[in-house]
Formats: sequence, C-alpha cells, structure tokens
Amino acid sequence: MTEPIRARGGSGQRSRSSIVDVARQAGVSVATVSRALRGMANVSADTRERVLRAAAELSYTASPLASGLVTGRIRSVGVVAPYAGRWFFAEVMHGIEEALREHGYDLVLHVLADPARRARFFTELPLRRRVDAVAVVALPLEQAELDVLTGLGVPLASVGEPLEGMHGERIDNVAAARLAVDHLVNLGHRRIAMIGGDPDGPEHFRVPRLRAQGYTEALQGAGLTVLPNWQLDGRYTARGGELAMTSLLSQPGGRPTAVFCQSDEMAFGALKALRRSGLRCPDDVSIVGMDDHELAETFDVTTVAQPVARQGAQAARWLIDQLDRSAEQEPDGDAGQAADGGSADVSWHQVRLVLRGSTGPCPA
Amino acid sequence: MTEPIRARGGSGQRSRSSIVDVARQAGVSVATVSRALRGMANVSADTRERVLRAAAELSYTASPLASGLVTGRIRSVGVVAPYAGRWFFAEVMHGIEEALREHGYDLVLHVLADPARRARFFTELPLRRRVDAVAVVALPLEQAELDVLTGLGVPLASVGEPLEGMHGERIDNVAAARLAVDHLVNLGHRRIAMIGGDPDGPEHFRVPRLRAQGYTEALQGAGLTVLPNWQLDGRYTARGGELAMTSLLSQPGGRPTAVFCQSDEMAFGALKALRRSGLRCPDDVSIVGMDDHELAETFDVTTVAQPVARQGAQAARWLIDQLDRSAEQEPDGDAGQAADGGSADVSWHQVRLVLRGSTGPCPA
Repeated sequence: MTEPIRARGGSGQRSRSSIVDVARQAGVSVATVSRALRGMANVSADTRERVLRAAAELSYTASPLASGLVTGRIRSVGVVAPYAGRWFFAEVMHGIEEALREHGYDLVLHVLADPARRARFFTELPLRRRVDAVAVVALPLEQAELDVLTGLGVPLASVGEPLEGMHGERIDNVAAARLAVDHLVNLGHRRIAMIGGDPDGPEHFRVPRLRAQGYTEALQGAGLTVLPNWQLDGRYTARGGELAMTSLLSQPGGRPTAVFCQSDEMAFGALKALRRSGLRCPDDVSIVGMDDHELAETFDVTTVAQPVARQGAQAARWLIDQLDRSAEQEPDGDAGQAADGGSADVSWHQVRLVLRGSTGPCPA
Repeated sequence: MTEPIRARGGSGQRSRSSIVDVARQAGVSVATVSRALRGMANVSADTRERVLRAAAELSYTASPLASGLVTGRIRSVGVVAPYAGRWFFAEVMHGIEEALREHGYDLVLHVLADPARRARFFTELPLRRRVDAVAVVALPLEQAELDVLTGLGVPLASVGEPLEGMHGERIDNVAAARLAVDHLVNLGHRRIAMIGGDPDGPEHFRVPRLRAQGYTEALQGAGLTVLPNWQLDGRYTARGGELAMTSLLSQPGGRPTAVFCQSDEMAFGALKALRRSGLRCPDDVSIVGMDDHELAETFDVTTVAQPVARQGAQAARWLIDQLDRSAEQEPDGDAGQAADGGSADVSWHQVRLVLRGSTGPCPA
C-alpha cells in the first residue's frame, strides 16, 4: 500500500509537516519515525509514545483518501446484514474486518433490521460511491434487490445464505444437517425430532429449508418416518428453542429420544427446557446442535462445527482479489465491471462433527 | 433528512431519471413511488417490487454524498474497538448502528486487535476526512492516542471503558460490583471469591480494576477479610472463568461458598468447572455474574444487568446531536470545534440485580 503524506494544522490553521519535522520534534531519526509509525516491533514504547505525540502535535498523518486519488479506489467495503448483536454476525464481521484491514480497507456496516429500513436501503442505496465492493451476510435477497446491488457495478460476495449470481462463501447445509442426524441414528435413536426455522417466514431465509432437507434425507436413509409435528420452529434463538422443546415434550404419542437443533443457540434453549422438565441430557434425551457457537463447548453441546470467521475473511479476500485483478486489467480504475462476469462461484467450507456430552446412546 | 436525487445510467452511460420516470415505468403514481421508496407500510409487496425494479432499471437513486455536499458532512461515524466477535461488542454495535441509521449516517468499523494494528491506526489515522465523529468502544487509550483522536477535531464519545476528556456512556462499575457482592453477603455467604480480569494487562482495561474495587468495598463493608488468592484472572472469557474456578476449588484452606464473576461469560465457565467437579450450583457454590449476557437467562445465571445496546445508541445520538448543534452555530459546517469544549460529561446508565437460580443461601 502506498503511503502518501498529508498534513493538517491543529487549531484551525492549515500547514504541512513532513516526516523530517516529526523526527526533529521527537528527537529521533527519520527511519525511527517511519518504523514507529508503521507499528514495527523494534521501537521502544517510550520512543513510540514520543513519535506519536510529535506526529499529533504537528498533525502529521497519512491519508487513505489521498491514496484513493492515486488508485481510483475508495478503499471501503460495504457489509450488509439482516441483524447485528448475534454471535454468528459478530464472528463473520470479525473475519471480514480483519481481512479488510490487512489490505487497508474500511468496513462500512449496514444492518437491515426491518422491512422499512430494508426498502429504504435498496432505494437510496447509501453504498453508492462509498464502497469498492459489497459483502452480503446471511441475507436472502429478492431478485429486484439483487438487481439493485448488481447495478452498483462492484464485486459482490455472500456469506452464509445462498445467493445466485454472486460469489459465495458457505457450507453445504444439507450435508451438515445429515451429519448431525446420522450421528443420532448411529447412536441407535429412532425417534428424532428437529427444531429449526420457518422457511416461509417473511425473511425467506433458505438455510432453515436446506437443513430441514438434510434432516429428512437422513431419516429416510435410515428407513425412519418423517413426522411433520416433530419439526418445530425455534426462530434460531435460545428462547425459541426452549419453547419448541417444551412443546415437543408435551405432544401426545410419546416424546422423541433425540433432537436435532439447527443452531447451537436453539440447542441451549432446548437444554433449559429439558432441565425444567426434570429430564436428563443425554440419558433421557440427546441434543445435537449446529455451528459450534463459542459457548457450545462450555455447555457441552455436541454440534456440527462450521468455520464462521473464516467465511467472512475469505469473502473479504475474494472481493479485494477481484479489485486487484480488475485494476491490473483496466488501469482506468473501473474495477466493478470485470468482476461481474463469470465469478458467481461458491467456495465451500468444511464442517465437522464435534462430539460432546449432550448426545449418547438411545435409552432402552 | 433531505433527499437529493441522483441518477446514474446503467451499462456505462450517464443519464438522469426522475421520480416521474420511475412512476411511468412502474405504472403507478408518483406518490406511490415515494411511499414505496420510503419503505412505508401501505404499499403492497407486489407494487414495491415493481417500483424497486423500475428504479433499478432507470438507475434512480438518492445519494447521501450529494446530501453531504449540501450539509458539509460526510455522514459517517467511526467506531473503534479492541475486539470483535464478542457479545458485548456485537450488542454495542447493534445499538450504535441502529441510532446512526435513523439519522442517515454510515458506521465505519475499526477493530484494533493487536499492538501493531493499533499503532498503525493512530499514526495513519484512516478515520481522517472519512468520519464526522468517533465512538470509542471498550478501549482504554494512552494519552498520546487520545491526543491524536482529539486532533481530528470531531466529536468523540466513549462506551464502556472510562476515558477522560471525552463524553462517556457507561455504568458505575464499582457500584455494580458492590450490588452483586452485597447480594451474596445478604444470602449469608462469608467466603466470597472473585473471578475478574488482569488490571495490569497490556491493554490497561480499567473496568476490571473498578469491579475489583466494588468487590473489595462490599467485603469490607460486611466486615469480611479480602484474600488476594481469592481474586483470580478469568480473562473475561468462558474458558478463563472455567480455569479460574478450577484453580479456586483446588486451593488449600477450603473452597469459597460463593463467587462473584465480573462477566457472565466467566460465570458460564465457572459453572462448567463446578459441574466437572461434581459440585452443585447453588447448593454447594453460588455464582453471580455481570452484564446480563443474552444467554444468562438460558443458563439461569443471577447477574447485574446493564443496558449494553442502549449505551451504544445513546453514544451515537449524542455524537449526532453535537454535529447538529455545531452546524446551527457554525453554518460553514466546521462541526468539530464546537464539540471539543465543555462536553466531557458522562451519561450514567442504571444497573439492576437479576435474580436467577445460580445464587442461593450459604450452605450450613
């Protein structure tokens, strides 16, 4: 990354300071200033403090906008997600932010938490001219919304939810669910229920439907009956999982001996419902979750792990790679067009079964 | 918010479309286009889809940058945090993002996860000219770093960690810890340990020290002895809490009957250590946490709740309020200066004890 130098005077006046001024002020060499400003290890904390203070006093900084004038880039990537404040989102963000920062890009966040916000986003399109690329996280898009994003003419990538016509970083949700349910089948369970999401909900998430498909395929592969009333909506939250499990336990015809929860958060809630009902896990009911939430180990939940932060990081690297390639191809800096065609591939991430204490043999 | 209209032709050509063109293309009235584009409720999904598609085909959008040309604002707020991918961070972000978006501001995220990244941030200062204001989340700053941020000449606010010379949104950490420990004392406990953070760690977080102070004050107020070897570092993680609890249980001289954990995540880990040791909670050992993590209810952990998302939202609103005020005072749009003086106040947020199943009377 180039490091053009900008200076801005404090207290209202505008002046330009050079690295030589900073070195003089701090009483160190220009090379030391350079090392300190790059955050390199071979500079003492005291010297770094002195250089930082001198740079602040002289208002000496590098400006990424000036860099943008050279490269034709804004050096920002937009991240669009349907929610914040959840573990999955925070993990993906963590991965994206770290990868972007390695390449000197800003992360601009847009959370489309309700329909009005979402409609406004796709009409006002605040991303326009503010980002070089866009990552869509766990957000299913309608065709018209997809058209609007494509119209930006910048590289696009999706994480989690499948999106056609756009590069994707995700897991095979059908296979992941089969892995979880096969594990229960192998333990001898025959009465296996599922707690998932509502595939017909207003958000039209596709992951719940894919994981339900894996559940159905695994049961059918084992010659087991698929019961509609053993597939409940847990809203992908701990509270929803608790309510769904409570409902499962009160159904006529006997309870399941094992439950596949489409997310670990719902598994946590299901565990709570079991405890309140005086049932032991896994002695009475086995529970398998999905994702490997950061607390799944703490609460001893068997799960199918997916690399969440890594999917975010790879989406960010893919976007930057597209920008770098198109910059090579088109020196006028019109980065978006080259990335549109032929790049709608999917990078599949491996999942693995993590055995913990919440699953055990089917009770006799 | 004003809504200036910008249009950009697709496929490379530049043309300008008006709302009238969109209405004609979609076969609806201009009023309907306006309602649909604002995401208002009284528009059918079908009509909204048609308007969105027409707007996309005609490349009709509103541009926040054009708005910026009118107001002199970039309409972005920088958020600086020491980590991502944790519940507290995700909650604060959620609150900030929602409040910013209400006012049409972007959120630009900077995570300073390691010393090199941090040094680079404060020297290159990628925020400069890219944001109108900055929120510092859970990040203690050295004086030189604070000077650099102040040098930006934009409104600054902090969330969580106390920062002098800057508006703050936070709780009284000493009082919050006292509340948790007083609860244990009131239950008859006399042997009360603490799992916290390392106040002398490289990040120099101040919250662990403040909460330790509250613990000490509560014990002293009850006439109890403060034992240094009953104050362990749990690194504010579930795993750290588990290790610290395991260590507490193996100390000579008998185990505590109650443990104050400075965060719910550490309380979750402490619960795991108890289970593995064959001890019951609260029959053998009571556990009280802090924060009211989204899973604290699921795992029945008594805690001192703080409003996390609300602190983020109020920091964002405070920053925007500063920008609006200075815009009124200085129509030339030099927003930062007015916000520098006299605004280093603190908005204190209430905490409350949430009684759950992890605390009970001291065993006989």
